[in-house]
Amino acid sequence: MDHRLAQLRALMAEQTITALLVGSATNRRYLSGFTGSYGWLLLTADAAIIFTDSRYTIQAAHEAPNFTFCEVNYAERPLPKLLKAMAEELGLQTIACEAAHLTLAEHQQLEKALGSAISLDPKQNLVESLREVKDETELTTLRRAITLTDAALAAVLERITPQTTEREAAWMLEVAMRLGGAEAISFPIIVAAGPNSALPHAQPGDTPLGEGQPIVIDMGARVDGYHADLTRTIALGTPDARFWEIYDIVLAAQRNAIAGLRPGLATHEADALARDVITAAGYGDQFGHGLGHGVGLNIHEAPGLRRAAANAPAVHLRPGMVTSIEPGIYIEGWGGIRIEDLALITADGAEVLSQAPKLR
Amino acid sequence: MDHRLAQLRALMAEQTITALLVGSATNRRYLSGFTGSYGWLLLTADAAIIFTDSRYTIQAAHEAPNFTFCEVNYAERPLPKLLKAMAEELGLQTIACEAAHLTLAEHQQLEKALGSAISLDPKQNLVESLREVKDETELTTLRRAITLTDAALAAVLERITPQTTEREAAWMLEVAMRLGGAEAISFPIIVAAGPNSALPHAQPGDTPLGEGQPIVIDMGARVDGYHADLTRTIALGTPDARFWEIYDIVLAAQRNAIAGLRPGLATHEADALARDVITAAGYGDQFGHGLGHGVGLNIHEAPGLRRAAANAPAVHLRPGMVTSIEPGIYIEGWGGIRIEDLALITADGAEVLSQAPKLR
Repeated sequence: MDHRLAQLRALMAEQTITALLVGSATNRRYLSGFTGSYGWLLLTADAAIIFTDSRYTIQAAHEAPNFTFCEVNYAERPLPKLLKAMAEELGLQTIACEAAHLTLAEHQQLEKALGSAISLDPKQNLVESLREVKDETELTTLRRAITLTDAALAAVLERITPQTTEREAAWMLEVAMRLGGAEAISFPIIVAAGPNSALPHAQPGDTPLGEGQPIVIDMGARVDGYHADLTRTIALGTPDARFWEIYDIVLAAQRNAIAGLRPGLATHEADALARDVITAAGYGDQFGHGLGHGVGLNIHEAPGLRRAAANAPAVHLRPGMVTSIEPGIYIEGWGGIRIEDLALITADGAEVLSQAPKLR
Repeated sequence: MDHRLAQLRALMAEQTITALLVGSATNRRYLSGFTGSYGWLLLTADAAIIFTDSRYTIQAAHEAPNFTFCEVNYAERPLPKLLKAMAEELGLQTIACEAAHLTLAEHQQLEKALGSAISLDPKQNLVESLREVKDETELTTLRRAITLTDAALAAVLERITPQTTEREAAWMLEVAMRLGGAEAISFPIIVAAGPNSALPHAQPGDTPLGEGQPIVIDMGARVDGYHADLTRTIALGTPDARFWEIYDIVLAAQRNAIAGLRPGLATHEADALARDVITAAGYGDQFGHGLGHGVGLNIHEAPGLRRAAANAPAVHLRPGMVTSIEPGIYIEGWGGIRIEDLALITADGAEVLSQAPKLR
């Protein structure tokens, strides 16, 4: 973790931030290694402190040996009081905080406790901007999660039949990933057959997979906190001409995006690489979501590959980013087709990390 | 859900709140039934509006038929813009918001978009105070989750041996709950053997369960969004005298708490019912956490049964609350013992909902 702290401190120095209070559990884990359900970090150029409670005393010392441990006790030593004491000890006048991860109520409590001598300075995307680019340790873990996801899908595809229900297939996929070594699933697995597949976030039900209709399978294994994310659309039996028409458009859109990804490309330009293909084929209105999203310690994280929002500054791809590439077309009453891979932005292009076969 | 909305509107009228923006996913589900991963509610005396995106158009209409649907699109119609338009249409000057569920960044964005004519008024515990008391539908679902948890533990206890590892036992419990009908597990299952059981939030590892040492099992099934929570401490083979000494203290503490629970009791008094027994036995310092917590749509929710915090107003038990009762003693190097049941506060006492057998 030491290089991550060093990077963050360089960023803090650049922005003349003396101290940062980290409230996000994900950012805390990224910087310290501490995975407990409750905790805060206070970071300065010299100090690295973890605030957590007695449930995690032993775990925090084990996971984050280079941090100083400070025990929170909601009754006698609540966080605001401890933070104030620590700020006074370190001589801090301003503490930057994570505006996207601090609730309004927490902010009010902290401000009240800190008083007028110490102020909070809301900031955004400090740690997130580091997390966008994965280091070698992260890539190794992500590759393990992806390989395991690919293998689980392959094993289950051999066993499903048209009589298997969505729910049964989802459970088979979950068991296969867990027995394969996943600590958890990345998100609730989607297995959506026929018209259900027109819902991008369908929930598996008692519908049999059936024959000749699209079956969208969206799944991922979590390994050491890192999330895989994979979608394949398949059909059992013989799909109709419409299936192949839509499948080929989505696949062409995905291929065009992957071929065009490279450092320096704006995220809305990446989105357009796929969207333009789908729009040209007449299905632009049936592709409601963005092309993809970063994955890592969160299943959805920066960068988001999607249409430009008004007033939002453009984000550009950088080597080391890992993002999903998942165009889809959804037709109410008939069904949907989505194809998703994870891709690593390289020095001059992109490497597709998922190996699960497609239908073409 | 209609009676819940009616209760909330009565509470809003009492506090002269004209409109409430609900940002918490759990509060949204409680009030509307809509379970999607993204959404907001705007509630007034007459209006009930859901803001969500195109992924959930069909689902929201199905789950929350009495709500008006308003489609968010991050690029052209982001939430702040839609909320402003809706507030103007409804003639709102002030919108209450959930301070504990709105991030500082979201608050800043909304304030900026709403401008000077419409203000946000941060509130806390409006919906949570309703959720503290469970209605009949909720109790039925909770009982299903609890029964299923009890059954899964019983089935797995017949199959484990001293050679079974913590991780294997945790997986057996998870599979038993899922095959029994749980949609998910309530939280990562704890199976902690010997010294590992001294960590209240231990993670299952490759340690065999062994003989004669405490094994803490903390588990729960989630059913239709509602969480069960059950802890038993067992031993395989013949435990030593210390095991029984500690076990009997924890059990006596739990029994004393359950016998004393009743409407009107302050939550810190409930905590003391168990804590005093443990302290009198000389283990007060080894009981670091609170006696229990409410359960429902969240695994941890109000009320918290624990020592009084400075300046916090006392909370009193009310009929219909469901709370865990989980005293524990943790001795570093040796292990820990925790016994946990869920209890329903009744008109004149408490009903223990968990049926899993204890060792005595």
